[in-house]
Amino acid sequence: MPKVAIVQNILAANDTLAQEIRERLAERGVRALNLMSAPGAGKTTLLERTIAHLRGKLAIGVVEGDVETSNDAERIEAAGAQTVQINTQGACHLEAHMVRAAMDQLDLSCLDLLVIENIGNLVCPAGWQLGEDASAVVVSTTEGDDKPAKYPAMFAAAQVMIVNKLDLLPYVDYDVEKVKRQALAVNPHLRIFELSCRTGEGLDTWCNWLEAFAHAAGARKEAANE
Amino acid sequence: MPKVAIVQNILAANDTLAQEIRERLAERGVRALNLMSAPGAGKTTLLERTIAHLRGKLAIGVVEGDVETSNDAERIEAAGAQTVQINTQGACHLEAHMVRAAMDQLDLSCLDLLVIENIGNLVCPAGWQLGEDASAVVVSTTEGDDKPAKYPAMFAAAQVMIVNKLDLLPYVDYDVEKVKRQALAVNPHLRIFELSCRTGEGLDTWCNWLEAFAHAAGARKEAANE
Repeated sequence: MPKVAIVQNILAANDTLAQEIRERLAERGVRALNLMSAPGAGKTTLLERTIAHLRGKLAIGVVEGDVETSNDAERIEAAGAQTVQINTQGACHLEAHMVRAAMDQLDLSCLDLLVIENIGNLVCPAGWQLGEDASAVVVSTTEGDDKPAKYPAMFAAAQVMIVNKLDLLPYVDYDVEKVKRQALAVNPHLRIFELSCRTGEGLDTWCNWLEAFAHAAGARKEAANE
Repeated sequence: MPKVAIVQNILAANDTLAQEIRERLAERGVRALNLMSAPGAGKTTLLERTIAHLRGKLAIGVVEGDVETSNDAERIEAAGAQTVQINTQGACHLEAHMVRAAMDQLDLSCLDLLVIENIGNLVCPAGWQLGEDASAVVVSTTEGDDKPAKYPAMFAAAQVMIVNKLDLLPYVDYDVEKVKRQALAVNPHLRIFELSCRTGEGLDTWCNWLEAFAHAAGARKEAANE
């Protein structure tokens, strides 16, 4: 089956490159998070709020993936983070070679955390490692409460799930407990946060976790900078 | 470039099969609509409301595409339409060969319209013809008002755009006029509907259009049934 072999070779080459990225970041004491979701779940707004919340505590760099436009990168740059835009011009997910090219545009020596905002897509990004130390999937209360069951590969690949737009719960039919049950059935190790970027509810808890996650590389960074 | 050739061959084979499906449906007087959106924009709820609204006026069959689960097919069947579920088990879009296999499970002689509900994904489905006479993309007011600019291929491929969840406009930052402007910049021929499946606002106008669209094949159907 030559077609399968081609796909396997492409994925294997991607994973090798992802491991190189992971090691390169680790040498510089930078942790990486791959942030994924359906289009419009609120990844960029979450990043804006997170960057503002952790200003002075955590130096965050962002690789911003979009099919087209640099709208999101402009928003993230305005929020005060080093940002590089990747436009895939049609492709439905980021791949490791794109992230490696983007990393060359960043000054890693002054970063604690690199967030890679993936293309808005609940299917394809799940299969492609980018050199991240953890993956987070954002779901929102307006998307319907059956997404973990309908897109299980994404929830199996993630270490973190963020339920966003809690402020809209009064106006939609969405059972947060059902979503958590479905997600944990797919992936019992999933760490779950519930928040609203609009009201700020739950942002503290998420940012505390992210700071601890990023600082897990801190000792190594101090040694590297000495 | 052998990789490109493979992709081109796969797409060309898909388009040939899509044309066969289109002709087979036309012979039976059935029109087909490819319904696409991001996950959670409300395709299935829109279909439920549409089937109920057009009961007795239009016989609708549905091919229900999902990565996993048959939740949506069960909802559509309960709404009273002939339904076939396709589970792609990981794949991010429907292809024509899947629709052809699903069609064999439907009694086309009693249908006016076949709606193909694609995988929730604003990128990949746009490149794959399924034998449809028209494509519709559903966006919702909770997704952010920049989707046509960020996912232009989807809006270029569609003939219809439906702006759903108008009832949530008071609670979100969403500029409907901006979305319409962006979509029409990508595709000036786009037919646009604005509605709320929750309140019913705008459903009449949409259903009237869909009925006229389906009945464009009516004369042919009567001839075929004689």
